[in-house]
Amino acid sequence: MSILITGVAGFIGCNLAKRFTDEGHQVLGVDNLSRGTLNNLAYLQNNPNFTFVKADCAERVGFLEAIENFHKQSPIIEVWHLAANSDIPAGVTDAQVDLKDTFMTTFNVLEVMKQLAIPVLAFASSSAVYGDHGEQSISEDSGPLLPLSNYGAMKLASEAAISAAAESFLARAFVYRFPNVIGVPATHGVLLDFVNKLKTSPDELKVLGDGTQQKTYLHVDDLIDGMLQVRHGATEKLAVYNLGADDTGMSVRHIAEAVVAAASPNAQIVYGIENRGWVGDVPKFQYRLDKLKKLGWTPKLDSRQAIVRAIAEIIQQEITRA
Amino acid sequence: MSILITGVAGFIGCNLAKRFTDEGHQVLGVDNLSRGTLNNLAYLQNNPNFTFVKADCAERVGFLEAIENFHKQSPIIEVWHLAANSDIPAGVTDAQVDLKDTFMTTFNVLEVMKQLAIPVLAFASSSAVYGDHGEQSISEDSGPLLPLSNYGAMKLASEAAISAAAESFLARAFVYRFPNVIGVPATHGVLLDFVNKLKTSPDELKVLGDGTQQKTYLHVDDLIDGMLQVRHGATEKLAVYNLGADDTGMSVRHIAEAVVAAASPNAQIVYGIENRGWVGDVPKFQYRLDKLKKLGWTPKLDSRQAIVRAIAEIIQQEITRA
Repeated sequence: MSILITGVAGFIGCNLAKRFTDEGHQVLGVDNLSRGTLNNLAYLQNNPNFTFVKADCAERVGFLEAIENFHKQSPIIEVWHLAANSDIPAGVTDAQVDLKDTFMTTFNVLEVMKQLAIPVLAFASSSAVYGDHGEQSISEDSGPLLPLSNYGAMKLASEAAISAAAESFLARAFVYRFPNVIGVPATHGVLLDFVNKLKTSPDELKVLGDGTQQKTYLHVDDLIDGMLQVRHGATEKLAVYNLGADDTGMSVRHIAEAVVAAASPNAQIVYGIENRGWVGDVPKFQYRLDKLKKLGWTPKLDSRQAIVRAIAEIIQQEITRA
Repeated sequence: MSILITGVAGFIGCNLAKRFTDEGHQVLGVDNLSRGTLNNLAYLQNNPNFTFVKADCAERVGFLEAIENFHKQSPIIEVWHLAANSDIPAGVTDAQVDLKDTFMTTFNVLEVMKQLAIPVLAFASSSAVYGDHGEQSISEDSGPLLPLSNYGAMKLASEAAISAAAESFLARAFVYRFPNVIGVPATHGVLLDFVNKLKTSPDELKVLGDGTQQKTYLHVDDLIDGMLQVRHGATEKLAVYNLGADDTGMSVRHIAEAVVAAASPNAQIVYGIENRGWVGDVPKFQYRLDKLKKLGWTPKLDSRQAIVRAIAEIIQQEITRA
């Protein structure tokens, strides 16, 4: 029996594949390699527990054909669906991006699971489903759900389709609402953006927005620990969980200062004037984690520690790449 | 300047078109005539304020072409998007139905509005976005939103896309979460179902479920009053409103008895054993209407009165049709 990971060549997918294969699971990884890279899977290349197939989950027939043979030999009993657009501003400019890569991937994963009678789905959702709740800290039951970006909208649309599928044919479903997740291999996000900006112009770091946006950050290793804890500890048929750090978060200003300190200590930081970086960015954001804590889980690193560690990892990654 | 109504040949669409044209507005009505019928628009046939074009909003290019010329001559300043699948069980069986007719219609309406710079959208959402909240009465901020049917899921997905569009390019958006709406021309729903079952077998009425499902009902005339009140009274950029009757609702048992009394007084009523009629049906349901009341609106008919009136209208309709 085996586990299917979609978006396996992306940041979180490749880390999850490592974890599952290290634990002895058979893993089938699927990715369309539009944003993820085979380089991210180098570690798994000769691992007998890991199989990779290139396919686009947004194309139902091709996706089904890509996994059918494997499924016959080693039945897939669980899907971890991580494939999605990860470029939020791109999806604001063109709604088709998140429609296809974030929503239709989920819709087709559900269709294929129904067809192949695969019982369990774990889904990478996002804090972006909540929209802007101001100073209020957000629990899984918080409403209204009014996402600001098409990315958040198509994550919420995906959750909705999964909810109906859990009522209709899935045996279990796990919906993880991710915070900002950091670590390596970094493919996008504020840390990589700042590190690369400083590589190009070591004397100045231009920051989108006024630097007051404050969010919590979770290291990818903690994220995976948290997901597995929920997978094994939650009892709900449809388990919806916030995953995040248990603190008030870090401002973009503090992150900029930390990256400058680690990468280019003499650089000057120049801020914009808006309190959000782009359309669809949520200026302030804090989770309530009571549900997670009831399962006995807290992250090993708080937002500050996660950022310090991830900055070091990303600087190392970019040196290696160069 | 004009108003576009999608799904204009359906139950609520044709009633809304009557109202707008009666008020002197220019109305462009679009429908793919898959469930709606031209018969529902007979009243508007020679009305100079009304134009009908057959088009499927789920096909973006064809939809755009169908409205572009009209828009050049009489700019559309507002879209009332009612086109959707209305057969909830059909969408549970085949998720493609609500994907195409309920979600992709909304997605394409938004794309076309962006392209033509149409500023205002009013959307027919549904209580089905909430899922099952048990005995709790539901306000617009209630969470979690875990729909039980693909219909509810694709209405929630539509709301999510509208929310992101309101952040990005719409000037105003109105999201109306409909309850059970009744009246004529009835195209589906429990009343028409019961009336037609009694026409076929006047001695017995078989009811799906045990009859304990209890919901509120709103007459279509009240629904339209309520929507227009919100349209003119609400001040939010993205206005989300529950629309419903201000009572505890009517059970299916009471509805069955009322239909039998009006249509076939000697019929025996036979109940099923489940407390829901089909996958995705919510057994009990009650709205909080505080937001609506703040705008000074309450329906003229409560659930019981609406049902009595609608039964009479539907019996008349079915006699006329026969």
